[in-house]
Amino acid sequence: MKVVALAGGVGGARLAAGLQAALPPGDLTVVVNTADDFDLWDLRICPDLDTVMYTLAGIANPETGWGIAGETFDTLGMLARYGEDTWFKLGDRDMATHVLRSERLRSGMPLTQVTFTLTDALGIPSRILPMCDDLVSTVLDTSAGTLEFQEYFVRRAQRDEVRGIKLRGIEEARPSDVVLDAFAGAEAVVFCPSNPVVSIGPILAVPGMREAIVASSAPKVAVSPIIGGRALKGPADRMLASLGHEVSSAGVARMYEDVVDGMVIDHADEDEREEISALGMDVLVTDAVMRDGPDRERLAREVVYFTGSVAGR
Amino acid sequence: MKVVALAGGVGGARLAAGLQAALPPGDLTVVVNTADDFDLWDLRICPDLDTVMYTLAGIANPETGWGIAGETFDTLGMLARYGEDTWFKLGDRDMATHVLRSERLRSGMPLTQVTFTLTDALGIPSRILPMCDDLVSTVLDTSAGTLEFQEYFVRRAQRDEVRGIKLRGIEEARPSDVVLDAFAGAEAVVFCPSNPVVSIGPILAVPGMREAIVASSAPKVAVSPIIGGRALKGPADRMLASLGHEVSSAGVARMYEDVVDGMVIDHADEDEREEISALGMDVLVTDAVMRDGPDRERLAREVVYFTGSVAGR
Repeated sequence: MKVVALAGGVGGARLAAGLQAALPPGDLTVVVNTADDFDLWDLRICPDLDTVMYTLAGIANPETGWGIAGETFDTLGMLARYGEDTWFKLGDRDMATHVLRSERLRSGMPLTQVTFTLTDALGIPSRILPMCDDLVSTVLDTSAGTLEFQEYFVRRAQRDEVRGIKLRGIEEARPSDVVLDAFAGAEAVVFCPSNPVVSIGPILAVPGMREAIVASSAPKVAVSPIIGGRALKGPADRMLASLGHEVSSAGVARMYEDVVDGMVIDHADEDEREEISALGMDVLVTDAVMRDGPDRERLAREVVYFTGSVAGR
Repeated sequence: MKVVALAGGVGGARLAAGLQAALPPGDLTVVVNTADDFDLWDLRICPDLDTVMYTLAGIANPETGWGIAGETFDTLGMLARYGEDTWFKLGDRDMATHVLRSERLRSGMPLTQVTFTLTDALGIPSRILPMCDDLVSTVLDTSAGTLEFQEYFVRRAQRDEVRGIKLRGIEEARPSDVVLDAFAGAEAVVFCPSNPVVSIGPILAVPGMREAIVASSAPKVAVSPIIGGRALKGPADRMLASLGHEVSSAGVARMYEDVVDGMVIDHADEDEREEISALGMDVLVTDAVMRDGPDRERLAREVVYFTGSVAGR
């Protein structure tokens, strides 16, 4: 069963890992946000791609969700000794990813192909696709002024209020043919529980992406990243509020109203079922928290099963 | 006393460290071979510059002479996992050097200035100058065909017979102003015990370099890298032989005849004193083997003292 998942960082990567475990090898394609990519020391860093890649390769740090398990930081320590500002925690193993990716990008290889060379070498049975091969950068209008995404997210630890979001370069971006083909051939589309505004939002904002998803006859379901009015991880709850969205599963459903046919929400949000149904969506109420590997696979199986009962519109 | 040393890798770096210890801070300038520089994963690697830099910073691996003490190799291990050929042993701390240098070179900063930013951050009291800012590459004609220098030196562990040496790019190379100024202001010039053909040779081959050294009124002395017919480190002995040079301190003296006023040779080569004197050179016979830090400083002091008794020509 060909499943295409849309994902950002840690939460999305965890459901993607559950889907990979639940599906036959090769049946999962993950389309990943790349709008928080940036350059550091002339290396291209793709935080969400890497989080999904390391998670699907089974080498992610289980505590943080990002980075590689057992990672060391000797290169970073030496960069600090050279007087560099080491606010972004690049691990030594992780560095290999950035070095190879940067070399290949500079040689003219598109990011989609570069990502394939890396995931293939790591033996990942799923396809991991950047949302596009173009450089798109999330820029945030915040209480501390204009910030590049990783400045906000890592350097300033998400402490600023987000008042607006711009996606620099999005007008010139296009989904790659392989992303378009994935949606065209999908039997189910799953919106992972990632931040709707800065993870899933940029994917949908690539010109032609939303249309390609809507044009797919596959049922499309979203797993709410908001449970009981809070984001399990990251600043999605505060960010939704400051941007004027309702911080609830129903609020997320409303943001996805024109592309999604069904919502997966937690028992904690059962009282929002009617409100979401009123949007014309099917609703699955379940335990939407992923505590460990078996939990990811359990939720993934429920999500896949749910897509079978959702009528594509 | 302003001393300018010419150096290649490990042996040269060790005498340079001795000179740095023997002289007042700031009095030593080391002009370093860069003809074995090369690109790996789009990073500029400068093996001799790094060996001199790490040695003068007091962080070199004392066993190997190259690389950083206590170095780890996690990035390299991950590169291997990505299917890369990891014949060149890049350490994790060492990687910081290559990443920063490559970024700065790509931004348009000349190698001389890049090197200064690194040595300054490491608190090195001496000046370390690349022989030029141009990319020059040693290419060897060997029994195994044409080899880039590091292919010969590291990958194939110097097992091939060297029949000829070419310096690709040397015609367009020029000594930087700061190198020319260093020789113009030198009170002594010391040729470190580095390989005369692939370490000191490329420095002298930069158009204008030999003339600048000869034009200096400072006494110029060379420390023989050959002791008892053998190189203490590296393939210099076999390389000299296969290129038709005499493998002895006198043979080295003959190679430096037109630029050097005095030779420092080991007691083992005392019987070559007359032969070297006959070339018009002064000769210091001493213990030319550097076993440890104090030994380096002892030899450096003897060399500096010897320059005081050598008449510049």
